[in-house]
Amino acid sequence: MTLRPVLLACALCAAFAAPAPAQAQTRGLQEILADAPASAWRDLDPERTLYMDLEAGRVVIELAPAFAPAHARNIATLARGHFWDGTSIYRVQDNFVAQFGDVDGEDPEKAKDLGRAARKLPAEFEREAAGLDFHRLPDADGWAPEVGFVDGFPAGRDPHEGKAWLAHCYAMVGAGRNAEPDSSIGAELYAVIGQSPRQLDRNITLVGRVVKGIELLSSLPRGPEPMGFYEDPAQRTPIFSVRLASEVPAGERLRLQALRTDSAAFAELVEARRNRRDDFYKRPAGHIDLCNVMLPVRVAAD
Amino acid sequence: MTLRPVLLACALCAAFAAPAPAQAQTRGLQEILADAPASAWRDLDPERTLYMDLEAGRVVIELAPAFAPAHARNIATLARGHFWDGTSIYRVQDNFVAQFGDVDGEDPEKAKDLGRAARKLPAEFEREAAGLDFHRLPDADGWAPEVGFVDGFPAGRDPHEGKAWLAHCYAMVGAGRNAEPDSSIGAELYAVIGQSPRQLDRNITLVGRVVKGIELLSSLPRGPEPMGFYEDPAQRTPIFSVRLASEVPAGERLRLQALRTDSAAFAELVEARRNRRDDFYKRPAGHIDLCNVMLPVRVAAD
Repeated sequence: MTLRPVLLACALCAAFAAPAPAQAQTRGLQEILADAPASAWRDLDPERTLYMDLEAGRVVIELAPAFAPAHARNIATLARGHFWDGTSIYRVQDNFVAQFGDVDGEDPEKAKDLGRAARKLPAEFEREAAGLDFHRLPDADGWAPEVGFVDGFPAGRDPHEGKAWLAHCYAMVGAGRNAEPDSSIGAELYAVIGQSPRQLDRNITLVGRVVKGIELLSSLPRGPEPMGFYEDPAQRTPIFSVRLASEVPAGERLRLQALRTDSAAFAELVEARRNRRDDFYKRPAGHIDLCNVMLPVRVAAD
Repeated sequence: MTLRPVLLACALCAAFAAPAPAQAQTRGLQEILADAPASAWRDLDPERTLYMDLEAGRVVIELAPAFAPAHARNIATLARGHFWDGTSIYRVQDNFVAQFGDVDGEDPEKAKDLGRAARKLPAEFEREAAGLDFHRLPDADGWAPEVGFVDGFPAGRDPHEGKAWLAHCYAMVGAGRNAEPDSSIGAELYAVIGQSPRQLDRNITLVGRVVKGIELLSSLPRGPEPMGFYEDPAQRTPIFSVRLASEVPAGERLRLQALRTDSAAFAELVEARRNRRDDFYKRPAGHIDLCNVMLPVRVAAD
């Protein structure tokens, strides 16, 4: 690799890997993560972690039962029943979503058996804010009175209504529905692959987040039909299998850890990215949007 | 295509193609665009429109000389000299940028001749706000005191400093630089393919926007090296040619038109997306972020 691109990369990527000065309060991303204590990381819970295996590799999704308990439970049931094995990613719309599941889901003649999964679920657009360990960002947000993180997930909160909800940031996973609020059961899912469509917040049930492998979805060819559908089944991306990590032999699981969003290391990371202090940035923004905050995930050290 | 996906699509895509009630003030995107008078559309200026031809198709970039006159001029000179012909897209980083140009740009042994192009340009991070037809969005923005649109481009403005600048929204194109503010000449360019990295605003020179074909860049495989580089030249995406539309025979030009951002149709479109009134949305957001506003482009009717 030649000098110019490397420098350009570092320049452009100061955003993502800022070389940092010595002062502790202005350390860069890499330093902060390297120095974070073991206690700042949490193991993903195999009972709420999904492995979606594609020819290109594995996509790992962490479910959010704290916000969508009924959907998370039904998705786990569908995974145990191997519902998604042999289904496909049948829609990829640029700057919006990659959607997957049973493309024939509403065709009585062709729909896959849902097995033991529920056929009807309540909408889980929001929940009571009480009882959540909500770590608020001080930064202004146009979509919600308050934004922050709950156990690794970006969220909004309305202190007056006493409600909280997951936010449609990049890599978030939601349950497709029809016009009726309670028409999703978690069998048809989508992952956000573009500019955060926050207008969907509190309008659809978000069920979790892609914590590894989002690039396998975001780099898929966009569907040629309206709204990114592939009419030709051959263009769809086959899903080999979707499994709960807990259903996979322990030795075959990915030992992933997520940086705790209630840790001092995370707070320092957010500030380091709110005000970039490296040589590239001439004017630190003094602001960060909820959906611009990185949520680091790593493979556990042995 | 079966019923379920179509409905799901419409649901998820209400954001993008909302079926609208009858009242004029709550018409959907398709209706608004279909009814927009010819005067609401502007032809792209062939003197500031670039065609980047890849094996997968054509990417069309509109330059913004109002904000980056020196860079736009140099880019036009480089295109006239066929500088990018045979270069490549040598970096694609997920949720960030696709970067292209001469990967050997800083290697004296291998760098391509810049021809008549300038070797040094001033930084064009911002300009005087005076003299710009700035159409402000009323919506709050965390990155800039004011945001809106100038002749089709998303922009920020500081009324106290009297400055305006282009904003790093999806599909915006910028000039990669090194640590020095004036180290870009427009030969190495990047397009935003993820969540808007607004922290780069006023820190780097934005030169224009991809108005057609961004999906050809956003769907490229992500580079395996740090920051999305492809160390293996075989993995890079060849650029066949980059031409000014004015250098292409009139009969071979794409007759593209952009919806005028100073038109009543655009204002109606923004409001229709700020407050979705279709059957899908149960809670209109009452807000829209600068980078969530669609900037419609169409092929001129004969």
